[in-house]
Amino acid sequence: MGCPVGVGPEILLRYFAEAGDNACAAVVLGDSGVLHRCAMQLGLEVGIVDWQPGQEVVPGVVPVLSLSNLAETECRWGQPNKQTGLAMANYIEEAVRLIGEGALAGMVTCPIAKSALKAAGYSYPGHTEMLAELTGCADFAMMLAGERLRVTLVTIHCALDEVSSRLSVAAVDRLINITGCALRDDFGISTPRIAVAGLNPHAGEGGMFGDEEGKVIAPAIEKARAEGWQVTGPFPPDTVFFKAAAGDFDAVVCMYHDQGLIPFKLLHFADGVNVTLGLSIVRTSVDHGTAYDIAGKGIASQESLVAAVELATRIIGNRQRLKGRKV
Amino acid sequence: MGCPVGVGPEILLRYFAEAGDNACAAVVLGDSGVLHRCAMQLGLEVGIVDWQPGQEVVPGVVPVLSLSNLAETECRWGQPNKQTGLAMANYIEEAVRLIGEGALAGMVTCPIAKSALKAAGYSYPGHTEMLAELTGCADFAMMLAGERLRVTLVTIHCALDEVSSRLSVAAVDRLINITGCALRDDFGISTPRIAVAGLNPHAGEGGMFGDEEGKVIAPAIEKARAEGWQVTGPFPPDTVFFKAAAGDFDAVVCMYHDQGLIPFKLLHFADGVNVTLGLSIVRTSVDHGTAYDIAGKGIASQESLVAAVELATRIIGNRQRLKGRKV
Repeated sequence: MGCPVGVGPEILLRYFAEAGDNACAAVVLGDSGVLHRCAMQLGLEVGIVDWQPGQEVVPGVVPVLSLSNLAETECRWGQPNKQTGLAMANYIEEAVRLIGEGALAGMVTCPIAKSALKAAGYSYPGHTEMLAELTGCADFAMMLAGERLRVTLVTIHCALDEVSSRLSVAAVDRLINITGCALRDDFGISTPRIAVAGLNPHAGEGGMFGDEEGKVIAPAIEKARAEGWQVTGPFPPDTVFFKAAAGDFDAVVCMYHDQGLIPFKLLHFADGVNVTLGLSIVRTSVDHGTAYDIAGKGIASQESLVAAVELATRIIGNRQRLKGRKV
Repeated sequence: MGCPVGVGPEILLRYFAEAGDNACAAVVLGDSGVLHRCAMQLGLEVGIVDWQPGQEVVPGVVPVLSLSNLAETECRWGQPNKQTGLAMANYIEEAVRLIGEGALAGMVTCPIAKSALKAAGYSYPGHTEMLAELTGCADFAMMLAGERLRVTLVTIHCALDEVSSRLSVAAVDRLINITGCALRDDFGISTPRIAVAGLNPHAGEGGMFGDEEGKVIAPAIEKARAEGWQVTGPFPPDTVFFKAAAGDFDAVVCMYHDQGLIPFKLLHFADGVNVTLGLSIVRTSVDHGTAYDIAGKGIASQESLVAAVELATRIIGNRQRLKGRKV
């Protein structure tokens, strides 16, 4: 459910209300009272029913494993506090535990806020880092995935000025490997075609505008190619995304946040999915934040959640088939 | 006509062949022989007729002011040399001269190559710099314009690592002013809505990832606002282009090449136009290069040229109306 006072509750309810009998076998780990109040406020006619691990999921209702009982007075839209933060963290911990036990096959996360986690005494910078620690994963990466474009990022949250110094052959090669494994195992693409973007305009134009392409990116591509990946580049950043969206590549490995996020959000503003690669568990997420300014108003779009549920279902299916083949 | 051995000749012929009687009153400054040979090679049935300054333009044919007489043996597709370079430079110089005399109202340029200019003994880095010198312009800027998005760039051809150090309040404010004047005078938008992109992810998120937004970009926006422009930002780069394409802004002022070019080429890969702002003369250009690898093969798209001609016509009309009002 994510943060109880963000847009999570309303996009969840809208997902189930719209999908009706066609909703996949998904259950909500959250707060039954919050969902009831939210449904009433928004005038959504959905049946919210209690669910316990091991029970069948009935189509056409919202099955909830209620893990908190937040009072209306302590739980106002857009105002996270210690109670909402603790509840939210508990939904995540419990989801990981139930996946570990085999009661659930994977998770889709609604947005949380760093500030809410902090209020509850947690020091994780975000959802992903928390999940990595809970699942004992040291090597993860973020992919933004949509129907037309998939991107992964070598550097993420740092100043543009620091990007160049954070690039290394090992970092780029590592990301090509994580991206390739995810495309093959999670997306079911037997021979993924991976493009790598350059860092500089025109990919440096032969060293005229920067030399990272020759010194770092090209050697990393060579290394990954030797490791067996079908990977090409470094491409001029201003054309590679058009080519990928036209179907030439299955993903683009990007050097910095906005290099990947600008084209991704242009094509998938509402229906993008954030996938955590490298985790032992399946985890997809909406690609937007808690949107506290509009929470509870009934105007948040559930499109990204719908896409995140579909993609998680697809990844779970692919991983199960893979496991079947390996056994 | 641009470089005689690039894709210029074929896209010109295709423009006239497709537009037929609806072509605007455009004339080609180039080489009649090259165009004749190109039309024959590509099997294009277009009438190529000589044109001299002052003559009326007849619809349905290709009117050519032939300024060179390149022999077939010295003029092979994709192989620029001193002769083709000199001819090409002459087309540009003559166009500027005829515009100055009032015989032509503005120019649309087909691509040239730096290497071809160099072979002819010119040291300009490109078309735009040559035009700026020929027209005595010290303060120009490049805009990429399409139906859905217009972008201008504070820095252009430099390594990503150098972008931050090249930004200044004066440079950003200057570009906002040039962009605003062009939108108002050339595009006929009475109160242009200008967005300014941040430099860093999430526009720095309050200084967490870089401080250029607070130190440079925001003060420049304040300055430009005081100068009377309706300008907002700095916006997170990963969402501002979606908003602009959705109609919220008339242009986005970008901090570096790929910040503007990645979203622009994603939306306008084939039909983008390069407009030089700040020149005394009207000049638009195709937004692609000479494409020597495919020149003469008949596969180059004329879409960008079509859009460049339409936009030049629009700008000429707007400038004439403005002049009429001022007189």
